[in-house]
Amino acid sequence: MPLGQRAGDKSESRYCGMEVLDFPAGEELPAVLSQSLSSAFDFLLAPLVDPGYRPAPGAVLPVAASDLVLSPSQWSSHIVGKISEWIDLDSEDEQLRLDSEVTLKQEIAWASHLSLQACVLPPPKRSSCANYARVVNHILQGLTNMQLWLRIPLEKSEPMDEEHDEAKNNSNMTLGYGGIHFDYYVGCSLIRSTLPSMNSLGRWFGEPVRAAILQTNAFLTNSRGYPCLSKRHQMLLTGFFNHSVQVIISGRSNHNISQVGLLSGDENHTEDTSVRHALGPYLEYIAYIYQRMDPLPEQERFEINYRDFLQSPLQPLMDNLEAQTYETFEKDTVKYSQYQRAIAKALVDRVSDDEVSTIKTVLMVVGAGRGPLVRASLQAAEETGRKLKVYAVEKNPNAVITLHSLIKLEGWESLVTIISSDMRCWDAPEKADILVSELLGSFGDNELSPECLDGAQRFLKPDGISIPSSYTSFIEPITASKLHNDIKAHKDIAHFETAYVVKLHRVARLAPTQKVFTFDHPNTSSNPSNQRYTKLQFEIPEDTGSCLVHGFAGYFDAVLYKDVHLGIEPNTATPNMFSWFPIFFPLRKPIHVPSKSPIEVHFWRCCGSTKVWYEWAVTAPSPSPIHNSNGRSYWVGL
Amino acid sequence: MPLGQRAGDKSESRYCGMEVLDFPAGEELPAVLSQSLSSAFDFLLAPLVDPGYRPAPGAVLPVAASDLVLSPSQWSSHIVGKISEWIDLDSEDEQLRLDSEVTLKQEIAWASHLSLQACVLPPPKRSSCANYARVVNHILQGLTNMQLWLRIPLEKSEPMDEEHDEAKNNSNMTLGYGGIHFDYYVGCSLIRSTLPSMNSLGRWFGEPVRAAILQTNAFLTNSRGYPCLSKRHQMLLTGFFNHSVQVIISGRSNHNISQVGLLSGDENHTEDTSVRHALGPYLEYIAYIYQRMDPLPEQERFEINYRDFLQSPLQPLMDNLEAQTYETFEKDTVKYSQYQRAIAKALVDRVSDDEVSTIKTVLMVVGAGRGPLVRASLQAAEETGRKLKVYAVEKNPNAVITLHSLIKLEGWESLVTIISSDMRCWDAPEKADILVSELLGSFGDNELSPECLDGAQRFLKPDGISIPSSYTSFIEPITASKLHNDIKAHKDIAHFETAYVVKLHRVARLAPTQKVFTFDHPNTSSNPSNQRYTKLQFEIPEDTGSCLVHGFAGYFDAVLYKDVHLGIEPNTATPNMFSWFPIFFPLRKPIHVPSKSPIEVHFWRCCGSTKVWYEWAVTAPSPSPIHNSNGRSYWVGL
Repeated sequence: MPLGQRAGDKSESRYCGMEVLDFPAGEELPAVLSQSLSSAFDFLLAPLVDPGYRPAPGAVLPVAASDLVLSPSQWSSHIVGKISEWIDLDSEDEQLRLDSEVTLKQEIAWASHLSLQACVLPPPKRSSCANYARVVNHILQGLTNMQLWLRIPLEKSEPMDEEHDEAKNNSNMTLGYGGIHFDYYVGCSLIRSTLPSMNSLGRWFGEPVRAAILQTNAFLTNSRGYPCLSKRHQMLLTGFFNHSVQVIISGRSNHNISQVGLLSGDENHTEDTSVRHALGPYLEYIAYIYQRMDPLPEQERFEINYRDFLQSPLQPLMDNLEAQTYETFEKDTVKYSQYQRAIAKALVDRVSDDEVSTIKTVLMVVGAGRGPLVRASLQAAEETGRKLKVYAVEKNPNAVITLHSLIKLEGWESLVTIISSDMRCWDAPEKADILVSELLGSFGDNELSPECLDGAQRFLKPDGISIPSSYTSFIEPITASKLHNDIKAHKDIAHFETAYVVKLHRVARLAPTQKVFTFDHPNTSSNPSNQRYTKLQFEIPEDTGSCLVHGFAGYFDAVLYKDVHLGIEPNTATPNMFSWFPIFFPLRKPIHVPSKSPIEVHFWRCCGSTKVWYEWAVTAPSPSPIHNSNGRSYWVGL
Repeated sequence: MPLGQRAGDKSESRYCGMEVLDFPAGEELPAVLSQSLSSAFDFLLAPLVDPGYRPAPGAVLPVAASDLVLSPSQWSSHIVGKISEWIDLDSEDEQLRLDSEVTLKQEIAWASHLSLQACVLPPPKRSSCANYARVVNHILQGLTNMQLWLRIPLEKSEPMDEEHDEAKNNSNMTLGYGGIHFDYYVGCSLIRSTLPSMNSLGRWFGEPVRAAILQTNAFLTNSRGYPCLSKRHQMLLTGFFNHSVQVIISGRSNHNISQVGLLSGDENHTEDTSVRHALGPYLEYIAYIYQRMDPLPEQERFEINYRDFLQSPLQPLMDNLEAQTYETFEKDTVKYSQYQRAIAKALVDRVSDDEVSTIKTVLMVVGAGRGPLVRASLQAAEETGRKLKVYAVEKNPNAVITLHSLIKLEGWESLVTIISSDMRCWDAPEKADILVSELLGSFGDNELSPECLDGAQRFLKPDGISIPSSYTSFIEPITASKLHNDIKAHKDIAHFETAYVVKLHRVARLAPTQKVFTFDHPNTSSNPSNQRYTKLQFEIPEDTGSCLVHGFAGYFDAVLYKDVHLGIEPNTATPNMFSWFPIFFPLRKPIHVPSKSPIEVHFWRCCGSTKVWYEWAVTAPSPSPIHNSNGRSYWVGL
């Protein structure tokens, strides 16, 4: 039974399981399962094979229950398999090591046979775990549907192997044990009573964590004797719920709540056959935390299917947008009211109150689409009482058809002239006082606003105003295992040299954003080139510990006019605007950043005769290749 | 409003549209749409651009309505675009030809801008239509979501071009106009009052027909003055509904039904503002035909998502089945009761009534899986009063675990011995009277039953019985555009040289099946090889006309014992058995078969040391390459 109903939330985090600690001998697993399901647990983390088993010729695997005792659909819906914990793939004892490998493969084969959704592997027993990694990677190659979850403590509280003293000092760990990374692993993290720092915990949100194993001894006791969690544990749990992580309660009950039901104080009620589940109070508390969360805001709900979904950026110069795309973007009222504010300010600066009856301002909307900026301009004129002559320049002939329909429907024939042309080629009949455009991409200049506006600058008066008047791009390093794996699935280099528009969700933001490139309009620079190069250094907060960087999240902020701005840079983002998701620049290989090591990254904006592209590279703490050399994988056509 | 509710049917055929005959000038399209929707039509086939338009510099496309007059979502949900019918891409008049190409591309660009789901192209105006094909193929390359429907008469009733006399004599046509094939076209067929033969019509079920345009003058009039259709038209329509084809009603009303509602004879009721739609009676009749269809049988409903879905055949020797797969197949009670009948007959033949107390028959189930044939064998023994000793030989160690559980749960310990081994390697302690196996694939021998049973024959007594005792494969040529296009989408040769298991639905079966290969067990032939070669000739019925062959559907029939058989060959198929779908052998290029030309096809079964494979080729009416030479693309591992 799900923990609760949250509007718009269909994620896995609604389901809560419990760990079966002892091997259910004598085919008692069906009874254990049925008792747990009737106590509102959704699934069991249960051992599959008698822990006393060791491989021997002719031995039949002593399973907890066959597929006749529990049906295949029960197995696959309600059981996560727990691989035998005695398995030690890196033991010095050769017999134990060999038995471990055979048994692990037999247990995984049995779990696959049952179509389990997942099995939990015990963590490696030592810091040096090359054989563990080899065997697990071998198994992963043969699995198609079943997931392997690695059980990993949130904090490495004890040294894993007496021989490795440095482990003691390294209380923050990354998921590559002993320097070995697993392909496509997914994890579950073990929550104990002590927690590391928030920065350290934050890293987990960039990792593919599927389940949080919450130990009963991590719970406190409230004044009424019931289990509860510390504020920090609650925050961590809420964070996990927001990242589709499900909870598995593990351990013996430390809270012996009276068998008397919570709902009734009557001790004389007829004895219920279903005795209260020992872990019931913990489950109830988890459900309470889940249900207490704020509902998802409407915009988040709308965007939920876009979370961590990689999209190629638009190519608005080469491709024409569709009517539905225009319509969606036009609904971003916050954006257009910012434009209207900027235009109104510019009109007032341009024409004093004394001149309103004599001066008509020439305003050109370059890239008019279906006309939202035409409307914002006319509204700004009306609001300020300024006379306006509008040219609407648009290269998409289908949007031009709609513009004609708009002018007719609104009766704007005397105010607006429609120009069906690319702004870079248009031979304008007069010069503009104000040039208004919305050519910005998630990274500011990445949809070639600089090149378009340089082309339009010909017909802007020398003292004319461009709205926007400047824009700046920003980046920050992130951990983003899911994005990395999605790109890796393409099995080529090109996808790692492409920037993606993506609603970032399962990521860890590792350091504050920094500026990358700025463009000013009109472009009055002595060197009018739009090529750029920037080198940046990011310092990761010390209490984060070491981490993995999968790439850089990118944003922009634009000055429309004077103090009116617009942007998605997290610290200054315009609220309630939905036109842009961040951009993501991936790295071909994730870079391991030890604690206290700065990250040095280089970004180039390069311009050719038919295309513009970015190149990027990391040089510290370890060098990456130059990504997208000569725009070979990703470029924007002119 | 859908035509009706049919349990399990979620296909497009529930929706019915109507054609807007005249250009809706003066922005009356919203009114036409709203009237049609309120009269229970689901969509309109409507002209997009004023037919008087010809391209000229600076001209704005005179559209029926902009995306401000009808919203993008209305356009995409309720309008199929009708491309201007004056367009003639192969005209001798150069200006008309050039204007046609420009206008077609503008109309398609406008339709894409509106995100229409489909546009209907007028049929080519001439038999020679190379430029039509070039332009349409060009457009198709640029489309991602929108479909192009070609409007094609069911029967070529008039010559299309006076210059081409042969067209007059060729009343049956294929969809390649003038010998030119379109990539990925989808069609809509025009139903008039006369219909060609059923064999000729049957070919359409193998074509990607999306809509049937039903002309009002194809309707008859019933005794009450209402429109109705001939029996043959009704059958055709039902066939289309069963193939997800939707109906579009076209033409003027020929049935002027009184405006008085059907529900009430009261002429004094207050005048309804929504006047009865002129095509309403036709729509009601179509809905009646739809609703009158038999509901889909439960098995069809279960299998509906498998229709025309290509699956790779199992590799049961190389891969182990999962518990769920065993469980699904075990539910095929018809299959196992046929086995039980065959085993019972064999037991009675083997042991006379006098000997029942003295003779114990040794029966070996080779490939026992989770034990369904063990159960059938024991039931046959009980039914006939024969004593039985059963060996259950199984190579999948996970199924062996389940077998042990089964024996324990059923208390069969004294009756059944479980052998965890591949039957080809097992060193049997004694010889069997009866060998029972279920190793058959959709094509009989394609899961290597011959090779497995040859290996098991070592431990069958010289006079022992194999169940099955023989099996035969069958093929027939089919039209299957959908399967062809799905395979083509992989853009390689290997997928065209692979046989697929598939529930055939959108296919036309062109000729009766013929036998391919037969295998007998035990194999007592002087040449025990399992290699085979067969050459077959198929004659297509004359009234079918010419057709396209995309490949061959394959089936099997097995003799279990004496008169007890089991199979999926359409003429003799065992009823209510669901374990096997047909197999499909594709051809790299569809072969055009003119009327009265036989098809000659060759099939080889080839055996190597580690694999077995098929090769196939067509030699008449035109030669194909040899498919899957040396098993390079598709093979079954030994």
